[in-house]
Amino acid sequence: MIEVEVKARARADTLERILALGAILMGEENHRDLYFNSPFRDFRQSDEALRIRIKEEGARLTYKGPKMDAMTKSRLERTVQIDNPREMEQILTTLGFVLSAEVRKRRIKYSLGDVTLALDEVEGLGSFLEVEARGEADWEEQKEKVLSILRDLGLEESIRSSYLELLEEKRRE
Amino acid sequence: MIEVEVKARARADTLERILALGAILMGEENHRDLYFNSPFRDFRQSDEALRIRIKEEGARLTYKGPKMDAMTKSRLERTVQIDNPREMEQILTTLGFVLSAEVRKRRIKYSLGDVTLALDEVEGLGSFLEVEARGEADWEEQKEKVLSILRDLGLEESIRSSYLELLEEKRRE
Repeated sequence: MIEVEVKARARADTLERILALGAILMGEENHRDLYFNSPFRDFRQSDEALRIRIKEEGARLTYKGPKMDAMTKSRLERTVQIDNPREMEQILTTLGFVLSAEVRKRRIKYSLGDVTLALDEVEGLGSFLEVEARGEADWEEQKEKVLSILRDLGLEESIRSSYLELLEEKRRE
Repeated sequence: MIEVEVKARARADTLERILALGAILMGEENHRDLYFNSPFRDFRQSDEALRIRIKEEGARLTYKGPKMDAMTKSRLERTVQIDNPREMEQILTTLGFVLSAEVRKRRIKYSLGDVTLALDEVEGLGSFLEVEARGEADWEEQKEKVLSILRDLGLEESIRSSYLELLEEKRRE
């Protein structure tokens, strides 16, 4: 599946403007994300990601491929639900993968038609909005749609870095 | 978890002797096992295994470490249940793992106290019995227990090769 996604730093009026667009509150989640790097190829160079996401309702293993264009964070994404994140972590490290970072955030999700808006409070980074469309087809069309929602919210500056990358940048500073 | 396991080729009277020991029929499963090899280290050399097992009730990803002694097939085993084996296969191949073999079998399971007896009909190989005890402690004691059950069944010759290895041997012949 292709994940078409844009991200921007949230502003003081972002929540108000999301609701003004007619978006519907879907729920709140707490994410604990474990990122792994590969001993074959450095995922920071290859722009890939391997992640275990642990939330209240369960855990998932997700692989994300390199970004597909210069404007969005769109990328190939493959996900499986897993029953035991600790066991999955141990399988990955035994296979040679290295736990590289942990990202914690609180996410409040809204839906606007077939688009998901996620207002994220990321530990150590602050507030962000992610606008995401999912599906197999009409990739260009979905890309235009998520970028237009970002503009409607007055958030024109799109951040292509992942939270992982932003945390690494911050650590280096 | 440590899996203490022995295996032998089944004989014509094996089922009868299992029942004579007082073992209880637990059920029948059809397994489709996908084995992967690693690009870091050849699992045939390192005596490890990475497997997706697909059966009627669901799928699992399992890592098995090298065998721990010369008599049994005992080894460290780590398993997660997964909701989508096809997606898991694609994650593994994208990460560089290579699908090396597929093993199909019909397994009839019996329990004898805390020990599991599995009578396997393996496609291309024939009939085998696996006797398995699971647990964290008393490894030597459990090893003695499974070997003694094998003797009680008149199956003294223990096979340490996996079905995967037996299929590879057969292919080479």
